[in-house]
Amino acid sequence: MAKAQTAITPTRSEDYPEWYQQVIRAADLAENSPVRGCMVIKPWGYALWENIQRVLDGMFKETGHKNAYFPLFIPMSYLQKEAEHVDGFAKECAVVTHHRLEMGPDGKLRPAASAELEEPLIVRPTSETIIGAMFAKWVQSYRDLPLLINQWANVVRWEMRTRLFLRTAEFLWQEGHTVHATQEDAMVETMRMLDVYGRFAEDYMAMPVIKGEKTEGERFPGAVSTFSIEAMMQDRKALQAGTSHFLGQNFAKASEIMFLDDKGERVHAWTTSWGVSTRLIGGMVMTHSDDDGLVLPPRLAPAHVVILPVIHKEETKQEVMQYCENLAREIKSLQYDGQSIRVELDTREGRGGEKAWGWIKAGVPIRLEVGPRDMAADSVFVGRRDKSVKEKYGATRAEFVAGLPALLQEIQDGLLAKAKAFRDANTVVIDNKDEFYAYFTPKDKDKPEIHGGFAMCHFSGDKAVEEQIRNDLQVTVRCIPLDAPQEPGTCILSGKPSQRRVVFGKSY
Amino acid sequence: MAKAQTAITPTRSEDYPEWYQQVIRAADLAENSPVRGCMVIKPWGYALWENIQRVLDGMFKETGHKNAYFPLFIPMSYLQKEAEHVDGFAKECAVVTHHRLEMGPDGKLRPAASAELEEPLIVRPTSETIIGAMFAKWVQSYRDLPLLINQWANVVRWEMRTRLFLRTAEFLWQEGHTVHATQEDAMVETMRMLDVYGRFAEDYMAMPVIKGEKTEGERFPGAVSTFSIEAMMQDRKALQAGTSHFLGQNFAKASEIMFLDDKGERVHAWTTSWGVSTRLIGGMVMTHSDDDGLVLPPRLAPAHVVILPVIHKEETKQEVMQYCENLAREIKSLQYDGQSIRVELDTREGRGGEKAWGWIKAGVPIRLEVGPRDMAADSVFVGRRDKSVKEKYGATRAEFVAGLPALLQEIQDGLLAKAKAFRDANTVVIDNKDEFYAYFTPKDKDKPEIHGGFAMCHFSGDKAVEEQIRNDLQVTVRCIPLDAPQEPGTCILSGKPSQRRVVFGKSY
Repeated sequence: MAKAQTAITPTRSEDYPEWYQQVIRAADLAENSPVRGCMVIKPWGYALWENIQRVLDGMFKETGHKNAYFPLFIPMSYLQKEAEHVDGFAKECAVVTHHRLEMGPDGKLRPAASAELEEPLIVRPTSETIIGAMFAKWVQSYRDLPLLINQWANVVRWEMRTRLFLRTAEFLWQEGHTVHATQEDAMVETMRMLDVYGRFAEDYMAMPVIKGEKTEGERFPGAVSTFSIEAMMQDRKALQAGTSHFLGQNFAKASEIMFLDDKGERVHAWTTSWGVSTRLIGGMVMTHSDDDGLVLPPRLAPAHVVILPVIHKEETKQEVMQYCENLAREIKSLQYDGQSIRVELDTREGRGGEKAWGWIKAGVPIRLEVGPRDMAADSVFVGRRDKSVKEKYGATRAEFVAGLPALLQEIQDGLLAKAKAFRDANTVVIDNKDEFYAYFTPKDKDKPEIHGGFAMCHFSGDKAVEEQIRNDLQVTVRCIPLDAPQEPGTCILSGKPSQRRVVFGKSY
Repeated sequence: MAKAQTAITPTRSEDYPEWYQQVIRAADLAENSPVRGCMVIKPWGYALWENIQRVLDGMFKETGHKNAYFPLFIPMSYLQKEAEHVDGFAKECAVVTHHRLEMGPDGKLRPAASAELEEPLIVRPTSETIIGAMFAKWVQSYRDLPLLINQWANVVRWEMRTRLFLRTAEFLWQEGHTVHATQEDAMVETMRMLDVYGRFAEDYMAMPVIKGEKTEGERFPGAVSTFSIEAMMQDRKALQAGTSHFLGQNFAKASEIMFLDDKGERVHAWTTSWGVSTRLIGGMVMTHSDDDGLVLPPRLAPAHVVILPVIHKEETKQEVMQYCENLAREIKSLQYDGQSIRVELDTREGRGGEKAWGWIKAGVPIRLEVGPRDMAADSVFVGRRDKSVKEKYGATRAEFVAGLPALLQEIQDGLLAKAKAFRDANTVVIDNKDEFYAYFTPKDKDKPEIHGGFAMCHFSGDKAVEEQIRNDLQVTVRCIPLDAPQEPGTCILSGKPSQRRVVFGKSY
């Protein structure tokens, strides 16, 4: 069979990791910088992040949170305040040791020996400790609670192997930090924000997720319990897309966040933290894109519609352009998802086909081609990014415009349904160890990244067993799903009794 | 005469610098952190920054700019690329030398000797060099130009003496970086963005500014020419509130930003950069606030209106609250400056007077007191932050609501007019050296910060003379105003001929 032409080489089935890099490159989302492990987010990628920020920020504010900003630097000693936190975070990070440069005798800059800091500063890998120090001052009485704060910021975690959006030394994120009077309130908050993340992933990113609790081995360092949303990528690996941590009183004790309760006693508070990052963009790319490049869910797309004027003769140019400008204005006046519909009019010189392919690779949901004949018939020629490139159709302008908001939502819903179907098709129930090992062993040695998918299995919670399968198969418990029914069974690995099934998978 | 009670101690005339700190504290805008020179921006202060960002971001996008994000770190050698830039920026900055911590024998963390970076990284003090390295790849042909990019980011400049918002080691800002095919295009862009800053300062911050060019001594390191907006604070000092730099080909040559022009020749591009920072908040505080605390221009205020329910008896509470909630909803449904009017309903327990004073100190433009009698008469009791605290008036609810958008704009306009009048009253024309020295010599030794104001004088541009008056009086040329008429005269300091007057002042 002749191989179909695709805009992205290699295809997903040929080389998934390389396909991912090429999709990002073709869509001009981001690229590596000269600084090891740090990426540059280009305008099209940053516009996606701005849309993610806008929506999430609205959801945070609706749930009573306020934004603030805390220092980039953390005194080294702070990382040591919470015992588990130090092990988890105080290792691979950027350490500031000097505050001045000087010119050396070779005419080159060097850190000035006279400007060594007394205590090194760490570039924040996460801000629990520095925010905790401030909260200890802000919280005095039960009347100050709950304290519901969010920060949009950059963080740095030195990583040896990086991949654009998925794992970079510096990344952008939001980190929520909240303080509560009772354990129950803190737990309600933890679950509320997990739910916000779940809704955002499904309703905006069109990325179905499993909400669940992490096992002890996968917990945030210092948390009492960690919850996450887990999505399946097209290579059937899991992506942890957001986490919400119930920190108990661990950080309150480490930072002395205490308050006078309504009985006049000074007690430790209960805290939570929760975050999502630019990693979401990687997840969105890997959930929807195809061998022709990026596919964007309309609710987050920087442009919903691109208009491509088709001009074969110079004498029709002005008229067609005017028609297209007028059409763009009409489309912009429509609303989708509470916003003006975002439209690009591509007036660049160059071949029409090349320009159209550029927008296909960039993932724009709807392309409109408009030439003199369309203009004469007051019609448009429509291409949908969620359909085959060749599958285009004509529509009267009036019909198209009237149906546009519904069409965008249809595309949005379709992407979610397709991703759900893919996940369901690659999720199996396994009750036997051999079958489990076979499921997670790649069929093709040349494509180690293509394997089974998610396996729903009974698991006793034994740490040694978890370690074993991680070593044998690079498989981990992604989460204990919140909606898993109580269903007594036998751990397929240890043979011990188990109360419910967990999700096993390989992960990013 | 008995001293009037004020909410802020000391008053402006008693101790201006301390008054400034106390206004920020009373409004809960920001505070110092445990990290030297780094501030924490608290929710009320951050909400101001969000409003500033929203408006400026819209203005940048309207003028064709797109946002992107570049690395936090800059390789040390990059700072050395542009000769003047290295002198200006490569001195006081945060230097990352290690990428890992380890536990020392004393059980304490320390930078791991085995993880020393081959080349230290600098936390960006500004991003010309790293962005230049990326632009060199992005720009290939004249068709790629102009390239109009903006970044919202944190930057770090190690400062010995810091002051909240005005001068901090870490601050938040935006930095625009653009590339153009011709000198003329780059200069048009430089002036366009200066104009955007000027309009933002006057129309949104209600802060009158003088737009002008900096002298050589005050130029951005590496720029061909630097333009700024200069505002007068209430201590009559100047605040440089935003800068726009024409970089010529200096950075294009340093970073090798070259392109094929329409004749097929490979030539260096022309670049600009421009920025404003969280310093704007300091400027806003010092322009409008009074001895009762913060005064906010309505267009940037996090809340336009606060409703204070007045409840003396428990039995009227529910009814008054319902009335206030209903009023809040009605107010929110109104538009001001293209946005829903922002209203706070203060339902906290506590004494009414104390609560009202909290909002006065926070700078909210309009306070509404609503008690059972107001409710019965369907009226409100109105306090304006731009009027005396005692000067309150009653209005029918319908009248008040109908006139609210206009009232907010009246307050906005009034603040600008008042600030302009203050600046004009403290700006003099001086044609004589002795008078100049007398003008800038504090009348009261105990209050060195209170001095003349702005002096419009002829100046020859002589660097030695500029240095002299800086040493003698801590006075500098703030700018050469763009709108200063050609007016031949004699430099009051050197006696040499001069073509126009410049603005002299003390500055932050």
